[in-house]
Amino acid sequence: MSEKIIVFDTTLRDGEQSPGASLNEHEKVEIAHQLARLSVDVIEAGFPISSPAQFNAVNNIAKEVNCNIAALSRANEKDIKAAADSLMPAKRKRIHTFTSTSDYHILGKFSHERYGGTIQEKRKTILQMSYDAVAYAKTFCNDVEFSAEDAGRTDIGYLSEVIEAAIAAGATTVNIPDTTGYTMPSEFGKKIATLKRRVANIDNAIISVHCHNDLGLAVANSIASLENGARQVECTINGIGERAGNASLEELVMALKVREDLFNFYTGIRSEEIYNTSKMVSAFTGIMIQRNKAIVGENAFSHESGIHQDGMLKNRETYEIMTPETVGVPKTKIVLGRHSGRHGLKSRLEKLGYTLDDEELNKIYESFTELADKKKEVFDDDLRVLMGDNVFQEDEFFELDYIQISTGTNSIPTAVVRIKEGEKIIEESSTGDGPVDAVFNAIERGLNIKSEVESYQVRSVTSGRQALGEALIRIRSNDKSFNGRGVSTDIIEASAEAYLQALHRKKLFLDEKENISKSKKLQNAV
Amino acid sequence: MSEKIIVFDTTLRDGEQSPGASLNEHEKVEIAHQLARLSVDVIEAGFPISSPAQFNAVNNIAKEVNCNIAALSRANEKDIKAAADSLMPAKRKRIHTFTSTSDYHILGKFSHERYGGTIQEKRKTILQMSYDAVAYAKTFCNDVEFSAEDAGRTDIGYLSEVIEAAIAAGATTVNIPDTTGYTMPSEFGKKIATLKRRVANIDNAIISVHCHNDLGLAVANSIASLENGARQVECTINGIGERAGNASLEELVMALKVREDLFNFYTGIRSEEIYNTSKMVSAFTGIMIQRNKAIVGENAFSHESGIHQDGMLKNRETYEIMTPETVGVPKTKIVLGRHSGRHGLKSRLEKLGYTLDDEELNKIYESFTELADKKKEVFDDDLRVLMGDNVFQEDEFFELDYIQISTGTNSIPTAVVRIKEGEKIIEESSTGDGPVDAVFNAIERGLNIKSEVESYQVRSVTSGRQALGEALIRIRSNDKSFNGRGVSTDIIEASAEAYLQALHRKKLFLDEKENISKSKKLQNAV
Repeated sequence: MSEKIIVFDTTLRDGEQSPGASLNEHEKVEIAHQLARLSVDVIEAGFPISSPAQFNAVNNIAKEVNCNIAALSRANEKDIKAAADSLMPAKRKRIHTFTSTSDYHILGKFSHERYGGTIQEKRKTILQMSYDAVAYAKTFCNDVEFSAEDAGRTDIGYLSEVIEAAIAAGATTVNIPDTTGYTMPSEFGKKIATLKRRVANIDNAIISVHCHNDLGLAVANSIASLENGARQVECTINGIGERAGNASLEELVMALKVREDLFNFYTGIRSEEIYNTSKMVSAFTGIMIQRNKAIVGENAFSHESGIHQDGMLKNRETYEIMTPETVGVPKTKIVLGRHSGRHGLKSRLEKLGYTLDDEELNKIYESFTELADKKKEVFDDDLRVLMGDNVFQEDEFFELDYIQISTGTNSIPTAVVRIKEGEKIIEESSTGDGPVDAVFNAIERGLNIKSEVESYQVRSVTSGRQALGEALIRIRSNDKSFNGRGVSTDIIEASAEAYLQALHRKKLFLDEKENISKSKKLQNAV
Repeated sequence: MSEKIIVFDTTLRDGEQSPGASLNEHEKVEIAHQLARLSVDVIEAGFPISSPAQFNAVNNIAKEVNCNIAALSRANEKDIKAAADSLMPAKRKRIHTFTSTSDYHILGKFSHERYGGTIQEKRKTILQMSYDAVAYAKTFCNDVEFSAEDAGRTDIGYLSEVIEAAIAAGATTVNIPDTTGYTMPSEFGKKIATLKRRVANIDNAIISVHCHNDLGLAVANSIASLENGARQVECTINGIGERAGNASLEELVMALKVREDLFNFYTGIRSEEIYNTSKMVSAFTGIMIQRNKAIVGENAFSHESGIHQDGMLKNRETYEIMTPETVGVPKTKIVLGRHSGRHGLKSRLEKLGYTLDDEELNKIYESFTELADKKKEVFDDDLRVLMGDNVFQEDEFFELDYIQISTGTNSIPTAVVRIKEGEKIIEESSTGDGPVDAVFNAIERGLNIKSEVESYQVRSVTSGRQALGEALIRIRSNDKSFNGRGVSTDIIEASAEAYLQALHRKKLFLDEKENISKSKKLQNAV
């Protein structure tokens, strides 16, 4: 009989830890809705103790989204309590607690003073911590997952002990992460088989794996573990995550689906929602997908060479092991225009996976009509970007009120900007190496700042005649990066808006830091 | 004892078949030089019969590059002769001939008339073709590789027969491609083991694999095959290639290197050249690398989350299984400026993997000083783009002589262009939805054409304060796509140049087509 594989999505937790990605609360909730529509079994929504923003995001998702919602916590009471609190409103919830188990991590992260002088003593402390953490988490909910961080490089004997203790304390899922993406599929498969054999109470829990892609093997390692007894896979949309990312959901799910003949596994995933989900995550995180990315890359279903095209024409199956429709790549481009109306817009957005309340619909409709005035045809990708840019953004400190650019051969690029900062109006002009540089210079002069621009990208977002450009910028200040995004039919205006958004986020961060340090001082005073 | 794995690079053949990639002859030779420096064992340089440009590229690489050079051919005399002719100047060479062996392909691609009425008859014909092709190739060189296309979906019994015949005819390497990226690692490993057992003369040839990444498993499948007796892997830089691409060289090589403890394999690759090679291929093909790509992505060695940074600070090995230096990520940014001089420029370019003759050095030096005038600091990435844009481009039909743009809030974006087409000078102006659209409209009006813009991207190419922008465009005409690239500190000027280059390539293609049809008419007349 075919066995179900549990799909645990961690796009909003591990995926959001990708350097360069950052999602606001609204975007997280929207992605969570889409993940529920994709029909993942568990959504890991965040790491509540790490910041108030993380806590709130998990809390809102727990309130709004109908799925099993998980929250991450280290193996201590404070973390676990925060996770439990944030998950309070969820109908179905899971506390996910973890500790490190490899010698690399034990030696690198656990102090002599608190955890013991020798590696043996430290291991003993960590074993007890794991047991206690799971037992404490069980006081809040029945569904508790325990992870042994860097299990891929953990001694199998010690790993077995820790897993056995976690299950004894009540863990319903035990997760074996290959945190550093170090293991090879055959090796990782054996590790899972050994645990299955060696851990006495293993049948009381589901074995899960969480594989990283540092050597390009995350999906293969996940599959090898399923072949050897694991029944949950942790993964992210587009494979985003720390460093080279995690196992990508779309590859994993489609491998199991395309090769059902071989495995006799199934997942609950509605694969035709993969394309929409992938596009939404890419638009919101600003992490682009390379053309040759499996399943969701632009080239995944195209066939260039003459030989292949010949074969394709005669028989589609010659070079195609799945159809684009299976993963939701639309067959025909739907185009909206000025006269599509609110209803037409709303129903198209819903098809693309967005859920809108009236206020949001008002906002997007306004942007939509503005855009439709400029370009006759509005494509799905235009709408996706508008949703990120116009609907889900917070109010900004800086508003671009006016911009004027002049540039060309043998002329010095010049920009004039007018920026509103609350009531204050700032007007400045500047020249630059190019028009974008001139705009950045004018903004910096006006606001009296200077930033290190870490990365700056512009991309067009429609598939036909281009009109809508999206600018992404990352600036660096005091070892911290801030992203900004702007969208406009004018690439330079988009760049200016992106820069102002990054400055907005930097200001938010600095304000928050100041508040924290003020309240700390207050506590110390009491 | 440790065994050597042969690295067969097909970036210039399968990689160049990526939809959207297109390399000119100079760029191909430059990449081949860099592959030799990376120390790959075999460079597959192209598919000579497919076009005169392909033939010339292989021929030039065979002349200039010191490596084993391979050329692809179908299993017929005309193809093989073209491959042999193009390889003539090479000191070490390999003819690579292939035919399809899976039922999908046999039924999809081979006509009843020529190959037989039943699948059995077709299989028999193909078996004989394979034998004959290898035997014919052997008359030109000793090193002959045979590939059974879609071996991943080929019946193991028939596959064994074909492989045995190819070896009997003299094939020194037999390649088992998973052409459609269909197989799972454990399954593919078993397939190789079965061949190893079943084919009587298998020890007379090296077993090779060529894996595609449609389900994200190309690297894993390659590794599984090595565990089961294969000793050559076919791969590409950045994993580019048809659809979702091929096994990526950098992932494969680093997996074998990082896990030498497990495998007891080694390759001849100088891993510290990986970064330069990856950057060169990305700059020349215009195929960007996603941030979370393993080994060569921007995030591959960065560590975002607080927890990880803590661990990293205490002990680098906590989250790092290889150092960035191993793959050649530079530790410090080298910056050139106005006063670096020709010698400084030349020596830096050589460090980045470029080999320059005097004429090329003159060209790049001129561009370099122009750029250094505009921006004080010139980075490695600036140089990489200049090399692609300024040194390796052919003369164009259309030259952008002058451009002037005015754009901003509440003003209608307007562009004026002056284009030289040989002696002819064309001046036009136009408005548009944005400044880029205005420029495209002005060009189209001036040249009296209209194009479908399939994709348009702009990216910045420096890591510090941005100044140099690269525009990539793909236009479509009569079911054929044409790429263009432009580079400038002015993003809009870069876009105009990219568009003109795409139009140049379209004209080249149409002219060539016309010539071919003229010469065909001539032949018919004789």
